[in-house]
Amino acid sequence: MDLLSKVAREVQKETKVRVHRRNVERLISAVLTTGDFWKIIDLSDIPVPAAAGIVKKLISEGILFIDEEENILLTQKGYDLVSELGIAKVVDFSCQACEGRGYPFYADRELYRTFVEIAKERPSPIRDYDQGAVTPETTVSRVLFLDSRGDLRNKEIIVMGAEDDLTGLAVALTRKAKRVLVIDIDERLIDFDNRIFKELGIDNATAMVWDLRNPFPEDIIGKFDVFVTDPPETFAAFRAFIGRGIATLKEEGCSGYFGLTLRDSSIFRWKEFQETLINEYGVVITDIIQDFNHYMNWDYHPETRAARIAPVRRPPKDIWYRSAWFRIETLPGFRRWNEPISDEVFYLDEEGSTT
Amino acid sequence: MDLLSKVAREVQKETKVRVHRRNVERLISAVLTTGDFWKIIDLSDIPVPAAAGIVKKLISEGILFIDEEENILLTQKGYDLVSELGIAKVVDFSCQACEGRGYPFYADRELYRTFVEIAKERPSPIRDYDQGAVTPETTVSRVLFLDSRGDLRNKEIIVMGAEDDLTGLAVALTRKAKRVLVIDIDERLIDFDNRIFKELGIDNATAMVWDLRNPFPEDIIGKFDVFVTDPPETFAAFRAFIGRGIATLKEEGCSGYFGLTLRDSSIFRWKEFQETLINEYGVVITDIIQDFNHYMNWDYHPETRAARIAPVRRPPKDIWYRSAWFRIETLPGFRRWNEPISDEVFYLDEEGSTT
Repeated sequence: MDLLSKVAREVQKETKVRVHRRNVERLISAVLTTGDFWKIIDLSDIPVPAAAGIVKKLISEGILFIDEEENILLTQKGYDLVSELGIAKVVDFSCQACEGRGYPFYADRELYRTFVEIAKERPSPIRDYDQGAVTPETTVSRVLFLDSRGDLRNKEIIVMGAEDDLTGLAVALTRKAKRVLVIDIDERLIDFDNRIFKELGIDNATAMVWDLRNPFPEDIIGKFDVFVTDPPETFAAFRAFIGRGIATLKEEGCSGYFGLTLRDSSIFRWKEFQETLINEYGVVITDIIQDFNHYMNWDYHPETRAARIAPVRRPPKDIWYRSAWFRIETLPGFRRWNEPISDEVFYLDEEGSTT
Repeated sequence: MDLLSKVAREVQKETKVRVHRRNVERLISAVLTTGDFWKIIDLSDIPVPAAAGIVKKLISEGILFIDEEENILLTQKGYDLVSELGIAKVVDFSCQACEGRGYPFYADRELYRTFVEIAKERPSPIRDYDQGAVTPETTVSRVLFLDSRGDLRNKEIIVMGAEDDLTGLAVALTRKAKRVLVIDIDERLIDFDNRIFKELGIDNATAMVWDLRNPFPEDIIGKFDVFVTDPPETFAAFRAFIGRGIATLKEEGCSGYFGLTLRDSSIFRWKEFQETLINEYGVVITDIIQDFNHYMNWDYHPETRAARIAPVRRPPKDIWYRSAWFRIETLPGFRRWNEPISDEVFYLDEEGSTT
């Protein structure tokens, strides 16, 4: 067995996060591009515990080392391995204009400016609810994405459990939806939204406190054209956010949007998520845009498992946490999932670490 | 039952193409944006036979009419329906810089210029093999996409049955791959590629005639890091191109790229394709970029079923045929499909029409 396979197998055994040899190869590619641990994760697209485990294992194998400024670097033995295996550095040709999303935030400058102005006074993210807000550019691009797909104008839209991003607020600000319902567990965000709606006279939008671990009441089931959410990556949360999101949809041909990351979930689990979407919920995936959602660093980082297990103490400086943006559509026979969540593993499991 | 549901049901019965009421709604949205039949299909994302059927049915219902210049327009009754149902026009905020792909062709100007210069003498698309080439901007963006995902440098890459797009040639032109194998049924394209490889001294790339209806020989199975293809949308072709593409891959963590359109396939069939990918082939979908591939209009359009069944005689002027760009990754236990194709429905079935 080659070294990369051995590292993958041992890291998987120790961290319980599934990884394969090409995950290890990609991490080494990332080290050729940057010495910053958090950027390495960003470029490697693997969960933090796996990245931390691989870095530590590659250090013990003499492939990597950490310098006095906490940069992760290749040893001479590491460069020999790179040369032997033909491992190339990570390059990025993604669009500077739209940050690779396909929909640039400045396509509606007025919405962007209004949103940024209002968002200045937003409640700051707290750890209790796994909050970490996306950039204003991300939020506005989400709205333009919805609009371009016919999922905004005159539509009834529910934005669920992700209002730290203020996506529900941004949707409402366009005044193009028929109705907007924002639900979130965090009363601060709900109060914030309702205050803005009132101040601006947006009377077709309301915000309501709701814990998504509880099933939706009947008056929410089957009442919306579009749902938008951004769940933690545990299975329990996937069901609570996305299963329940699908349950709110009226009929076939309705759509749902959500972020899924590879920072708190492995590509193995992504396959299981896709199995659930297609086989169990009966929907089709129409879009997956990698690195669409950019998350601003959160103040509570030092308290997280991610910080504890990292091979360096240096906190992230730039944006490193990104997620892909999924769009799904319902088809005839789609299933509305709305069970209570009894699972205690809601925010965090073996692959997660940033809560 | 409302009018849109009735139209959907009757069109499905007559055309055998599955459609739901929101497909009809989206088509009406498209008519609010353009009167051109081919652009309406582009914006509606439904197969040509379904779009033709819906337009004809909506004409007979008094909702649409065709003027003397063959523009499709709403009647007064149509506008009343639009107003009653709150149907909005289609808008498009996709990025002007990268044409919504996320990877702009001009990120590597030298590759683009070289490719355009060489492609001037490309063989023109012929109907026999369902050819229709993507724009040079699309081809170059594909290469930059591969490179950004670590799927180009030092990789062994097979480009299969889509060399009318000259993607294999463009990959080879970068001189960054370890090895490039181009296969296509069309001897003209294979000769063209081999001549260029020879002229430019690109000695790690070869092109070979192959009919993908036949199983691959053993020396191709499990030998590549990456496959790239662009199949017709029948089930038989999906297996022959994508099942066999997956069969060429070495191990878990390898990747495949392919285009799938909603112009020759319904969203219902997309779900079946996704079931096949995930349940049968054991891969995970990492990317779906809508409208990534832009196809230049083909000379044989007047001979196609699409032209025959269209409600207008006016041929397409601008680009209207687009497809989504999929990227998949193999995971442990993925299955290599390499059976012979006995199905006669290879290029065309009830949902297809552009061959």
